Amino acid sequence: MPVNLSAPDPAALFAVPGVRIGVAEAGVRKANRKDLTVVLIDEGSAVGGVFTQNRFCAAPVQVCRDHLAANYGIRAMVINTGNANAGTGEDGLMRTRSTCIALARQLDIAPEQILPFSTGVIMEPLPVDRIEAGLPAALADASENHWARAAEGIMTTDTIPKAFSQRVQVGGATVTITGISKGAGMIRPNMATMLGFMATDAKIDPALIQPLAKRLADASFNRVTIDGDTSTNDSFVVIATQKAAHATITSLDSPEGKALVEAMQNVARLLAQAIVRDGEGATKFITIQVEGGRDAAECKQVAYAVAHSPLVKTAFYASDPNLGRILAAVGYAGIEDLDQTGIDLFLDDVHVAVKGGRNPSYREEDGQRVMKQSEITVRIGLGRGHASETVWTCDFSHEYVTINADYRS
Amino acid sequence: MPVNLSAPDPAALFAVPGVRIGVAEAGVRKANRKDLTVVLIDEGSAVGGVFTQNRFCAAPVQVCRDHLAANYGIRAMVINTGNANAGTGEDGLMRTRSTCIALARQLDIAPEQILPFSTGVIMEPLPVDRIEAGLPAALADASENHWARAAEGIMTTDTIPKAFSQRVQVGGATVTITGISKGAGMIRPNMATMLGFMATDAKIDPALIQPLAKRLADASFNRVTIDGDTSTNDSFVVIATQKAAHATITSLDSPEGKALVEAMQNVARLLAQAIVRDGEGATKFITIQVEGGRDAAECKQVAYAVAHSPLVKTAFYASDPNLGRILAAVGYAGIEDLDQTGIDLFLDDVHVAVKGGRNPSYREEDGQRVMKQSEITVRIGLGRGHASETVWTCDFSHEYVTINADYRS
Repeated sequence: MPVNLSAPDPAALFAVPGVRIGVAEAGVRKANRKDLTVVLIDEGSAVGGVFTQNRFCAAPVQVCRDHLAANYGIRAMVINTGNANAGTGEDGLMRTRSTCIALARQLDIAPEQILPFSTGVIMEPLPVDRIEAGLPAALADASENHWARAAEGIMTTDTIPKAFSQRVQVGGATVTITGISKGAGMIRPNMATMLGFMATDAKIDPALIQPLAKRLADASFNRVTIDGDTSTNDSFVVIATQKAAHATITSLDSPEGKALVEAMQNVARLLAQAIVRDGEGATKFITIQVEGGRDAAECKQVAYAVAHSPLVKTAFYASDPNLGRILAAVGYAGIEDLDQTGIDLFLDDVHVAVKGGRNPSYREEDGQRVMKQSEITVRIGLGRGHASETVWTCDFSHEYVTINADYRS
Repeated sequence: MPVNLSAPDPAALFAVPGVRIGVAEAGVRKANRKDLTVVLIDEGSAVGGVFTQNRFCAAPVQVCRDHLAANYGIRAMVINTGNANAGTGEDGLMRTRSTCIALARQLDIAPEQILPFSTGVIMEPLPVDRIEAGLPAALADASENHWARAAEGIMTTDTIPKAFSQRVQVGGATVTITGISKGAGMIRPNMATMLGFMATDAKIDPALIQPLAKRLADASFNRVTIDGDTSTNDSFVVIATQKAAHATITSLDSPEGKALVEAMQNVARLLAQAIVRDGEGATKFITIQVEGGRDAAECKQVAYAVAHSPLVKTAFYASDPNLGRILAAVGYAGIEDLDQTGIDLFLDDVHVAVKGGRNPSYREEDGQRVMKQSEITVRIGLGRGHASETVWTCDFSHEYVTINADYRS
């Protein structure tokens, strides 16, 4: 069961003019599953993306990078589940390119105008024939109103589809933002998440789309972790179809740019947090705030050390205020000159540790009360500067082991 | 159940002349447990130690460092379980010093001649009164033949005591080496393990004891990981009582020095591996060899990324040859310029991946066969140099979650 997250109401997901989505059952790995999604993007749209930093990146990630760099204008995306096409070498690249060529023929565009995405099992050959055979059905299904279907079509171990919409006033016009994401395990994105897609009809200088994608990822998908395993396929794509009735945004820091970025960041954060809320086996949603660091990097380093500690995560699962485990993780986070006598620890409003030791007024029942909640904020003060950072994670349960011991069977 | 590891036969543990051990039930956390161990060391022994790199190191670790630096000649060690005296601030330091003062009075030595060790729950005050009250019983129990009792006396979540002995010829004399260790969770030692103690009657220049301790730890305890959580209390101590009948060893690289180091490394490696074999919830013992790296550091980095991946560890638990997870971990290990087309992967003798892709002759049933074993070697070729490194770890099971969700209750 995801933590405080329910499936999106399709009626609450706004269509984005210029984007149509079709979903089909291609039988990539198993029959009777919506496992093939095609996103059609009107000519003139600006498209940017950020991808996994995993050096073992998947074939589709490599092809996406090439196609964005080719700069022909992206007109479609094709997404399959059931197979990640990662760890597949040169053959995997050829299979991804074949998929792009097949879709390009049907749409009468160049293969370089297509971004391919795959998610699922690693190191198995992509069944290109089945994907190609599924394309006509996916194209026939294309509609502006299929965001909810797409959110479902890209799921793997997710228990629930993830989609959010928002409208915002920009330069006197109403702009729509809609996004979807997927991912529940192998989640510690570095640049982007497993798969996240956002579209807006906003009009922005195409030169801004890439910095916008990076800025959005940094404030959302690059702040979540489930198991510390950075996927081979992480991809986050932002589409601006340029159909809205405002003047073109030429700077992300202009008043109009800021309004758009803020609204898009809000949707991106909801999408990223939704991945954690639906984290494999998650029973709790944990916000880790690190303050008083010398710089943002060391705050993030400490936050991730805490977020990845199996001992911390199992203590949250058990609602056991065994909070020394958090201090231990802070200590091994890798800050060479950290002075433990400067450390404070809060659990929501409860002041647990002061100057690196137990707070004399801390009572176990107060810690216990917070640990039982489904949403918990851990606040760590490093006492050595003014930087702060936040990451979001979940707990670590029996169910995580069950899911990952059984995933392929 | 530990993986291919049984309790030591007390009769197979050789006494080390100059070292006596006494164990008592002090009721530190729970009644009727052997939780207090005292090790008495004859005058003139050389003692060295290496300690956790966790910046949140426990009070006893800080006091051990101070007492070794004071250089009065270490004459005793006192070890309690049930309480780690970590995350306890200035008060924790005072309590550790009180323990040393109490034991020093009974032995008529200086407090600085005592090394204190604590292991157990973090962030709770050490019950010094109970430890002091238990000292006379521990001292009355002191005997050269109590290594097996000591191995039991220092256990926490361990399911089995860990002790090994070896005899070796050095410079025409028979030298005895005996060691004990403990630890099953919060194990990713950096400099040393949770607790490891080794003694030998070898005669070595006291100036060599510290480099010897470091060399032994680097080849043993610094090569194991269970959950990636570096403890606040890791300590590894080496004692040389100087009683053997050979000429003093003045270099670790002389023929006599090498013979001693080799035998001691053998015992240290067995002690370190025993911790992994008894890892919390472990069902398999995994050796991870990384070859073809530019330097040892990057090999170790890759080995630890694989050893810490929850996805890799749960796949081993499930005997599921979902081996793409290993490639993914290699990819996110942090080698910026890693070329995935140079990667080879072997599971024992089975060649799984070649040039970053699935080996065409790899058959799933071969992977499956190896995954079902209780001892598995993962060999990763990076194809970019001649360095290699090995680390040892275990799988990740339901039982790990159960143990750590229940540890304090």
